[in-house]
Amino acid sequence: MHLADFIRNVPDFPKKGIIFKDITTLLKHPEAFQATAQALFEQVRHLPITKVVGIESRGFIFGAVLAEKLRAGFVPIRKPNKLPAAVYSQSYTLEYGQDAIQMHQDAIQPGDYVLLHDDLLATGGTAKAACQLIEQAGGKVVLISFVIELVFLNGRKELTDYPVQSLITYS
Amino acid sequence: MHLADFIRNVPDFPKKGIIFKDITTLLKHPEAFQATAQALFEQVRHLPITKVVGIESRGFIFGAVLAEKLRAGFVPIRKPNKLPAAVYSQSYTLEYGQDAIQMHQDAIQPGDYVLLHDDLLATGGTAKAACQLIEQAGGKVVLISFVIELVFLNGRKELTDYPVQSLITYS
Repeated sequence: MHLADFIRNVPDFPKKGIIFKDITTLLKHPEAFQATAQALFEQVRHLPITKVVGIESRGFIFGAVLAEKLRAGFVPIRKPNKLPAAVYSQSYTLEYGQDAIQMHQDAIQPGDYVLLHDDLLATGGTAKAACQLIEQAGGKVVLISFVIELVFLNGRKELTDYPVQSLITYS
Repeated sequence: MHLADFIRNVPDFPKKGIIFKDITTLLKHPEAFQATAQALFEQVRHLPITKVVGIESRGFIFGAVLAEKLRAGFVPIRKPNKLPAAVYSQSYTLEYGQDAIQMHQDAIQPGDYVLLHDDLLATGGTAKAACQLIEQAGGKVVLISFVIELVFLNGRKELTDYPVQSLITYS
């Protein structure tokens, strides 16, 4: 099964000139969804993962599936002011301006082996900030996994301290 | 395993006087996460589900896990302007004002048997709007499933046309 065939290109979203890679056409297809979950799982099943961290909100989808398959805990990283208890915050730079993400302080403990998952690797800024949150809590990032990697944006340059895997790449 | 023991009460979130039911303490616990996924799956495994619809963003977590276990497709319902292709929109009433949710028009086809999932049943407004989106696309809502139900808010009154199940109830 060629998973890239299930990705939809949406021109000019979210703004003119950008071709958005839409995974909803893959998600809604039972066999493609199943095959993606299995392929992501095969990349990590040999690792001693204790927590899977998913980045809001599309990273929750396969992040949660991976946590279930690995029999690990699941930890959401969210936009500011969404998590109710004490959080760590990390800001990161966007093309124009800044954004931030948060994680509960008690979500990760020292000794946790963490798989970080998001749907898409673009410039790598969000994933790098997520790694900083995980490490601030004492966790070790064992692997970062993505469904899609936009290779031409060179996001791996931000993530050289970590192993990175992706399923579908665009050069 | 008593799943309610893993829910954290956070007073005065998101505003004074509200006791927020925080599921992140359940999600991060491997056995509680696994047991919750399995209990939700047991409620639906006998049903001929073709699509699981999850409501952004906490509904993506167990919604995706259920889709994988059922070998169904997964469909995200999102806040406005997040989905890139043509959408159906549905607004609903909040305590003060209105909000809206959207679903891709091609996410559900006539003949689809749909499990709708969200983490929490409060007043039922979001779930009812989600059912309207699914039906607008021609799908049949077979069951609505929640992790938590705040029974005292009487959300089932909005959902009398559908079977509703929840795992953890607060009276």
